[in-house]
Amino acid sequence: MIAPIRWERHRLLLLDQRLLPVEERMREYTRWRDVADAIRTLVVRGAPAIGCAAAFGVVLAARQSAAPDGYGLVADLEEAMKGLAATRPTAVNLFWALDRMRGVAEAHRALPVPALRERLLGEAQAILDEDLAGNKALGAHGAALVPEGARILTHCNAGALATAGYGTALGVIRTAHEHGRVALVWVDETRPVMQGSRLTAWEMVKEGIPHRLIADVAAGFVMKQGEVDLVIVGADRIAANGDTANKIGTYSVAVLAQHHNIPFYVAAPLSTIDPSIPSGAAIPIEERGGDEVRRIGDRQTAPAETPVYNPAFDVTPAELIAGIITERGVFRFPYSFR
Amino acid sequence: MIAPIRWERHRLLLLDQRLLPVEERMREYTRWRDVADAIRTLVVRGAPAIGCAAAFGVVLAARQSAAPDGYGLVADLEEAMKGLAATRPTAVNLFWALDRMRGVAEAHRALPVPALRERLLGEAQAILDEDLAGNKALGAHGAALVPEGARILTHCNAGALATAGYGTALGVIRTAHEHGRVALVWVDETRPVMQGSRLTAWEMVKEGIPHRLIADVAAGFVMKQGEVDLVIVGADRIAANGDTANKIGTYSVAVLAQHHNIPFYVAAPLSTIDPSIPSGAAIPIEERGGDEVRRIGDRQTAPAETPVYNPAFDVTPAELIAGIITERGVFRFPYSFR
Repeated sequence: MIAPIRWERHRLLLLDQRLLPVEERMREYTRWRDVADAIRTLVVRGAPAIGCAAAFGVVLAARQSAAPDGYGLVADLEEAMKGLAATRPTAVNLFWALDRMRGVAEAHRALPVPALRERLLGEAQAILDEDLAGNKALGAHGAALVPEGARILTHCNAGALATAGYGTALGVIRTAHEHGRVALVWVDETRPVMQGSRLTAWEMVKEGIPHRLIADVAAGFVMKQGEVDLVIVGADRIAANGDTANKIGTYSVAVLAQHHNIPFYVAAPLSTIDPSIPSGAAIPIEERGGDEVRRIGDRQTAPAETPVYNPAFDVTPAELIAGIITERGVFRFPYSFR
Repeated sequence: MIAPIRWERHRLLLLDQRLLPVEERMREYTRWRDVADAIRTLVVRGAPAIGCAAAFGVVLAARQSAAPDGYGLVADLEEAMKGLAATRPTAVNLFWALDRMRGVAEAHRALPVPALRERLLGEAQAILDEDLAGNKALGAHGAALVPEGARILTHCNAGALATAGYGTALGVIRTAHEHGRVALVWVDETRPVMQGSRLTAWEMVKEGIPHRLIADVAAGFVMKQGEVDLVIVGADRIAANGDTANKIGTYSVAVLAQHHNIPFYVAAPLSTIDPSIPSGAAIPIEERGGDEVRRIGDRQTAPAETPVYNPAFDVTPAELIAGIITERGVFRFPYSFR
């Protein structure tokens, strides 16, 4: 099993996803600020995984605090929660996990510091365990949508690496593969950060799932040749109407799928749904630095003077989504999650 | 002016496009086999440019031949023309240019060797000069389609670097820019070989044309935001019905443009039209090595075990193309080039 986020000997361990697929290195964290940096710099990425990592960041903040009692500790945590929340704007699971941690802290502020720390660790561990269990339930619901001999296209990485260790889109693919239903997974490389080629292909190799990597530009041509039966992607935030923010390029894949009459599914835990946002228009879209596009590693691929537009996410309108697969079952258009 | 292909002092000079945008280096060629290698390894690329380079390759073969008379020379040229034709399968301009050279050689085989060599050099130079003049005529026809303040999206590089020195899609953009009509050029980076970021962005910087580079995956999102008024791309081969082979990803851009009601134009010289092929289904599509996708420069971006599908071109059906811009004017659907 791939376990990208672990708590061991009072430390948070994160698999450094920037080094994959070349190197598998776990990094150790004992300070919440370093966890915030790890989220910001993509050591850990993927909406559910960011939520889990931030929850343990709060646990570390509680260990760092010198407050004499629970009230002081809760006050100290506020700075860490603000700092962790400021790392990345789009994935809602980050704010959802911090809200859960805040709720536990405030509910138990009358406890002595060591007991409150234990409660916080228990909550972070629960977020991680529930994500894993939820992914497996989601995988079972989704696998029922996968026909025998399916050729499935996925974009970015919504796998073990993006979650507590099983995956949303790749969780569905894992379960369907266990049932012998997956003929091939088409892996979009997912520029500019290459989560498809670096992470999803790596997971496919680890699990022995038949797959084929393509440049993002080839997805439409592969669909046109009749080589794709369905598309499954993850999500970073789902509005109340089902509009879904996910990795940049997801929207293009959804339009291409519609053009070719290929069902397009989103797989995500319920924690990805943001009922406070009526539609995708209100989802904040993170814009990242131009050098992600102008350079690859040490290699300059565009003139330094060339301006770049580098949105990290886009929004796919609900009407392009055939179903949203969650741990509680598959929702269908028009979406209502109440 | 950018002059990527020049004949000087009995040598063919090619700008090594693999080194752009970091380095501008001209390479010298005196043997046709080295020109074939240059075409195969993308020192020179772009359908019209490949045709010009191959024509000069035949000139070099004529210089290399030790045949005592024109009949022997023409026999010697056959091997070179076969070798040059075998370099890349999709761009028809390659075969068109070789056919022109063959026609001149056969028509003048009775001439003494030096005179026949002169005729061949004259024909290669004519192919180059006509391409340049044709591009400028094409640019004028195309610029009439560009509205004031246009934001134009282009894919790959159909610029000076892909031609004798002016460009097809970028020729239209150059002319429209001279008329003050271009507000912005959206440049798709064009994975896997990055002709957009490495070559088109470099041409835009050279010419001072306002532009913005995006990862290919962002094109749909940019269109959805209403930031694209028209799309112009080049072509590698156009079937008799208007179906157009061009750089992989062009088809996806055409589908996205249709979805957003954005006109999608192809710009190409008439030499790109292959009347012998009724529809796009019969256009041979080059498949290139997997390491173009698995690696970027020295950097490994996917597991070595991951299988790759790497078609270099795709086919856009004629019905998605609002117009085909040539040196003789703009053709409209349904296409007939007689």
